Amino acid sequence: MTVSGLNSLPRPLRPVWLDEADGDVQVIDQRRLPHEVAILALRNVDDAIQAIATMAVRGAPLIGVTAAYGMYLAARHAAGHGLGIDHLEDEARRLRAARPTAVNLGWAVTRVLQALAAEPGAHARVAGARKAAAAIAAEEVDNCRRIGAHGLSILEALSRARNGRTLHILTHCNAGWLACVEYGTATAPIYAAFDRGIDLHVWVDETRPLNQGARLTAWELGQYGVRHTVITDNAGGHLMQRGQVDVVIVGSDRTTAGGDVANKIGTYLKALAARDNGIPFYVALPSSTFDWGLDDGVRGIPIEERDPDEVRYAEGWDGAELRRVRLCPEPSAAANFAFDVTPARLVTGLITERGVCRATAQDIGRMFPEKIK
Amino acid sequence: MTVSGLNSLPRPLRPVWLDEADGDVQVIDQRRLPHEVAILALRNVDDAIQAIATMAVRGAPLIGVTAAYGMYLAARHAAGHGLGIDHLEDEARRLRAARPTAVNLGWAVTRVLQALAAEPGAHARVAGARKAAAAIAAEEVDNCRRIGAHGLSILEALSRARNGRTLHILTHCNAGWLACVEYGTATAPIYAAFDRGIDLHVWVDETRPLNQGARLTAWELGQYGVRHTVITDNAGGHLMQRGQVDVVIVGSDRTTAGGDVANKIGTYLKALAARDNGIPFYVALPSSTFDWGLDDGVRGIPIEERDPDEVRYAEGWDGAELRRVRLCPEPSAAANFAFDVTPARLVTGLITERGVCRATAQDIGRMFPEKIK
Repeated sequence: MTVSGLNSLPRPLRPVWLDEADGDVQVIDQRRLPHEVAILALRNVDDAIQAIATMAVRGAPLIGVTAAYGMYLAARHAAGHGLGIDHLEDEARRLRAARPTAVNLGWAVTRVLQALAAEPGAHARVAGARKAAAAIAAEEVDNCRRIGAHGLSILEALSRARNGRTLHILTHCNAGWLACVEYGTATAPIYAAFDRGIDLHVWVDETRPLNQGARLTAWELGQYGVRHTVITDNAGGHLMQRGQVDVVIVGSDRTTAGGDVANKIGTYLKALAARDNGIPFYVALPSSTFDWGLDDGVRGIPIEERDPDEVRYAEGWDGAELRRVRLCPEPSAAANFAFDVTPARLVTGLITERGVCRATAQDIGRMFPEKIK
Repeated sequence: MTVSGLNSLPRPLRPVWLDEADGDVQVIDQRRLPHEVAILALRNVDDAIQAIATMAVRGAPLIGVTAAYGMYLAARHAAGHGLGIDHLEDEARRLRAARPTAVNLGWAVTRVLQALAAEPGAHARVAGARKAAAAIAAEEVDNCRRIGAHGLSILEALSRARNGRTLHILTHCNAGWLACVEYGTATAPIYAAFDRGIDLHVWVDETRPLNQGARLTAWELGQYGVRHTVITDNAGGHLMQRGQVDVVIVGSDRTTAGGDVANKIGTYLKALAARDNGIPFYVALPSSTFDWGLDDGVRGIPIEERDPDEVRYAEGWDGAELRRVRLCPEPSAAANFAFDVTPARLVTGLITERGVCRATAQDIGRMFPEKIK
C-alpha cells in the first residue's frame, strides 16, 4: 500500500485503473478514506478477492469491474504457469464467492471468462481478459453518464417546482464514482444538476456500520464542491416530516425484474418515510444490477451477514491515525446485516441508462424487452 | 470520581442513591458506561448541577430525582452555614437551569422546595428535603413497576401466540433503569417477562449519535442476564421484514394528549417499519411524560438540535480509555436532531402506570380523566 496525495492520481479520478508500466491493477483503498488517499496494487487474483472481501473496493459496479480485472490477473498468472481454462474456471468461482449480494460480481466474472474461453492460447487470453475488463469499465462509465442525464431531468423539474429554492436531496450509503468508475449512479444526477447550476444541497446518511456516507459520499461531494450535511441514519424521517427533503436518490446492489431493490441496510426505512411524507424515492442503477431471474426480492435476495465487530466498533480518525473504538459492552453480541430490500411499491422510479421507468415488472420489461423471456 | 466494580454497588442497582455513612448523594457516571462503572459523589448543589448539565445523569425521571437530591444537598449546606430559605430558593433556580428542557427537573425541584418551606428550622429542612427526594424516587420506581406489570400481560399474550418460541423485542435508545431509578419504562415489561421465565431476546438499536442503546441498554440487559443483540439503527426494518421482530417497545420524552410520541431520533422510522410489517409498536411512559396542552406533536413539539460534533465523531473504548474518532471529512458539516415525533396513528398502544390504552385523545382522556379540561 502507498499513501498518495490526491494530486498524484490519474485524471479523471477513478477508484480502479491499470498501471500501464507493470500491468498491475491499482485501486483506491476506500477503507482509509476520507482520512488518507491510499492506493493498493492488485498483483494476482488473491489480491483482487481480498480487496473485494475486505471492502477496500465496494459498490456493485466497482466490485464487478475489479472482479473483471481479477480475471485478467488470473489469466496473466495462468499464462506464466502453464495453467489452462480449468484453472481459470476455478478462479472465477473463487472470485464470485468474494461477496454474496452483488449481482455484478458474477455477471462480470462470467463475461470475462467467456471472452477468455474464446481466445486460442494463454497469451491471447491475457489480452482478451484485459480488453473485456476495460470494456466493462467503459460501459459502466457510459451507463453512469446516461443515468446522470436521465436523472437530471427529474431534478430540473423538481427545482422548477420549487421556483429555484434550494433543492434538498437525501442519499444513503455511497453510490458515487467511488462505487462505480466515474459519475456514480445515485450521485450522477446530482453532479449533472450541480454542473447545470441548480441550487442544491445533499443530506448524507452516515450509513452505519461502515459509514460509507459520512466517509465516502461526503468526501466525493466535497471534492466536487457540492454543499452537503452529514446526518445520522436516524434523522431522515424527521427531516422528511419537516419538509426538508425534496427527493431521495439511492443506488442498488441488486434489483429484481419486479422492481424490488436490495441496497445498503437502512434504505427500506428511508423509502417508508418518503412514502409516508409524499416524497419521491428514486433508485439509480445500471441495468447490470437487475437480477432478471428474480421477482420477489424480500424472499429471494440473499442478504450478506458480515462480521458483528463492524457494529460493535466504530472506526475513525483520532487525529493521527485510523483507530477503532468499541461502542458496546465487551460481552454483548451484535448482528450485521449488510443490505435490506425495498419493495417495488415504495419506489417512485428507476433511473437506468436507458431512461426512467416505474418499478413494475411491466415497465421494466418494456424498457429492457430483450431480457424478458 | 471513583472507578468501582459493580459488586461494590448497593442492590438493587440504581443510578442514584444516598451514602448512609456520610449522607452524600452517589450517582453512576453514565458517560463512562459500559466501559467503566464510575461513581460520582455529589457533595453539594454544584456537584448535582454539574452531573445533570454534563449528562453524567440523563433520562427525564433520573434528572428529576437527582435534582431533588440536589435540593437536599443545598439544605444540608444551608443548615451548616446558617443560610435561610432565600438561599434555598436561589439554589432551586440554579438547579432548574441545569437542563432547562427537562420537564421533571423543574417539577421535582419545586416539590422539594415546598416540602422544605413547610419545616420549622434548618435541621428539619434537611430531613424534610431528604424525605421528599426519597419520595419522588420511590414514586418513579412504583410507576415503572406498574408499567412493567401492565406491559407484562402484552408480552405474555405474544409469547403464548408464539407457542413459547423465543419472543423477539426491539427497542430504541435507553429507557431502562439507568434513565429512571429502577425497572425503567420500555425495559420494565422486558424485565418482568424475563422474571416470569418467558423466553425472550432483545434487539438493541445502537442509537446514534450518542449510542445510548449500544452503551446503556446493552449493559443493563447484560447485567440482568437478558439475551440481547446490538444492531445498527439501519437494521430494524430488515429484521421486521424477515419476521425476526415480534414487538417494538420504546420510551418517550414527551407525548401529546392526542398520542403523538416524541422520542429519540429514529423512533419514527421503526414505527413505520412496524406498521408496514404488521408488528405491534408500544410506547411505555409514566403519565408525567404527557404534555396535556399539546395535540399535534409533529407541528407542536420543539426538537432540540445538539452539537454537530456528536454526529461527526463517535466515542468508544480503545482498550485503555474513552476516545473520540472523527467519522467524516474534516470540512463536512453535520446536523444533529435529538428527537423525532411518531404520529399516534403508528402507535399500537401506550403502556402507562394506570394500564394500556390506545394512542387516541379519547382513550388517553378516558385513562386520565382528571387531566382533561
